[in-house]
Amino acid sequence: MPRLDFWYEFASTYSYPAAIRIGTLAQARGVDVRWRPFLLGPIFADQGWRNSPFNIYPAKGRYMWRDLERICADRGLPFRRPDSFPQNSLLAARVATALAGEARADFSRAVYRAEFAEGRSIDDRALIERLLADLGLPAEALQRASSDAVKTAVKASVDEAKRLGIFGAPSFVAADNELFWGDDRLEVALEWAVARA
Amino acid sequence: MPRLDFWYEFASTYSYPAAIRIGTLAQARGVDVRWRPFLLGPIFADQGWRNSPFNIYPAKGRYMWRDLERICADRGLPFRRPDSFPQNSLLAARVATALAGEARADFSRAVYRAEFAEGRSIDDRALIERLLADLGLPAEALQRASSDAVKTAVKASVDEAKRLGIFGAPSFVAADNELFWGDDRLEVALEWAVARA
Repeated sequence: MPRLDFWYEFASTYSYPAAIRIGTLAQARGVDVRWRPFLLGPIFADQGWRNSPFNIYPAKGRYMWRDLERICADRGLPFRRPDSFPQNSLLAARVATALAGEARADFSRAVYRAEFAEGRSIDDRALIERLLADLGLPAEALQRASSDAVKTAVKASVDEAKRLGIFGAPSFVAADNELFWGDDRLEVALEWAVARA
Repeated sequence: MPRLDFWYEFASTYSYPAAIRIGTLAQARGVDVRWRPFLLGPIFADQGWRNSPFNIYPAKGRYMWRDLERICADRGLPFRRPDSFPQNSLLAARVATALAGEARADFSRAVYRAEFAEGRSIDDRALIERLLADLGLPAEALQRASSDAVKTAVKASVDEAKRLGIFGAPSFVAADNELFWGDDRLEVALEWAVARA
């Protein structure tokens, strides 16, 4: 079965529309998606950025918010810009890492909806607890999220992302390590996965 | 008639596929395209960049060349990476500015083909002379390119680009000043121009 790794960062704006649509698009093409939460912070830091490039470069930032708004409107996706950006995504990344399979995908979509459809703060432990409960997932995932095993797994994901040449999110990586960056490359990435399977 | 301004920089890689396809796509939708050559150098300098971001950030650069190669392969466009990047695009921008209408569009496409299909150096005066001759355009455009009027017009274009919020190329600007960035936004920009006309 063709496979595509979906690399996402919970603070990343364009990861929101990608997370919402990747399941349906992949299923229609018979592609198995592996959800790979990671952190862009350490990768940006390697480039000398201590903030989001959308904040460092205001013209780029203004454009991104407008572009995201248009994309969401086109796709009938609710959108609400959170008060603060970028958000601290460490807790959400750890909880997603503590989950697996469909539970991870469901939780990840719920985090993006809370953040970019409702404008909520995803570093709020109570919010994360509620999202897990709403999905019928064990609250215990939150405890496991702070375990050494999960912390190590998140660090390993960041290292793997660097090795794959990932520099932004969302990114898509096919089984042959071919890299695609950006929500607008999702269709091409899926085609690549199917053609090379 | 719907209108779309096409803002391009001759050193910009993604402007190549956009320049080649915009005419056909726009004609099919009944959109009038205004070709707007400009320079990104002064805009990048305002952001603290003295080089292309694709050189400053190597992972991003490696990805861009691969992505461009895939795009060209998909569209049956010849592609050859020039030895040096980014190229000095001042001469080409001035000559394009000295031309108008279809002559400007034809010349601009020819420059992109020389640069990214043949890997040639577009700051070479002899190359620019040959491109003009091949298109049956007056060699005198090259003299006009160094006139004060043209130099002032190029500077005015850069200032206008800044005012429009342009931070990269290719960019597309609709009559209502709605901005779209990137070859992958061309279809959406054309739709916007048609819907708002």
